[in-house]
Amino acid sequence: MNATIRLGTKTDMAALLVLIKELAEYERAPEQVDNSEPQLLADWQAGWFEFLVAELFDEIVGISLYYKRYSTWKGTCFYLEDLYVKPDLRGKGIGLALLKETAKTARRAGAGRLDWQVIDWNSPAVDFYKKLGAHIETEWWNCKLDLGRID
Amino acid sequence: MNATIRLGTKTDMAALLVLIKELAEYERAPEQVDNSEPQLLADWQAGWFEFLVAELFDEIVGISLYYKRYSTWKGTCFYLEDLYVKPDLRGKGIGLALLKETAKTARRAGAGRLDWQVIDWNSPAVDFYKKLGAHIETEWWNCKLDLGRID
Repeated sequence: MNATIRLGTKTDMAALLVLIKELAEYERAPEQVDNSEPQLLADWQAGWFEFLVAELFDEIVGISLYYKRYSTWKGTCFYLEDLYVKPDLRGKGIGLALLKETAKTARRAGAGRLDWQVIDWNSPAVDFYKKLGAHIETEWWNCKLDLGRID
Repeated sequence: MNATIRLGTKTDMAALLVLIKELAEYERAPEQVDNSEPQLLADWQAGWFEFLVAELFDEIVGISLYYKRYSTWKGTCFYLEDLYVKPDLRGKGIGLALLKETAKTARRAGAGRLDWQVIDWNSPAVDFYKKLGAHIETEWWNCKLDLGRID
């Protein structure tokens, strides 16, 4: 049962949003998703992100959403914002296939490193990433400023 | 003593690299900086990042380096990779001026949020960001994968 991994296109936005919301629920923050299908489409068309989908029998069962980032220490990188596979299809290599294809896409674009984040209580994901050879840092905190709050 | 904040250009790369290295030393990781002046210039010319400089008497005394990012929950954002002011010039509003100009630049580009990271032991920075109204999250870990390590 091999999923097909392909680049996401404009007809995938509805499925993409469903999986973004499922991931937010898994991360215990479903109320945080303010995004919408038209907004996703507009942002994708304006080049803010790209994504891959994993398809199984014509159904989208996993996603990887990423964009460029820059490390002043290491240079060009890619950032993996969301990696998600439907719960009943985990453990079949779909997440790994999405992650590997994301890494290849990043390398083709000239990036030397792929970065992402994992929430501290998600031990299965932490173990999966460590096994893959990822370096995990626990000493950095995220800061977020709504741009309406500064003048 | 008001610093001038302006967009960085190609003649600023040497000064930019000096301040990137000073920040890495402050963050106790000077050996981590693999970047070089020609590499910074090439990456900047290829559009991987933009930066602001703070100038005082024709000397660059502070930097803000940023690029676009994307939140699947909140939409278009900017990411502030490095914010640095020379130690003997802190407490004079230069960091705040750089941060505000970065926020304005992000807003003009259509971003709804500005994100960055702070290292957990840097209490003066944490206090400064909280006073500014930033939301700080401590539960996410950074994952980094060298792209030579996956095939």
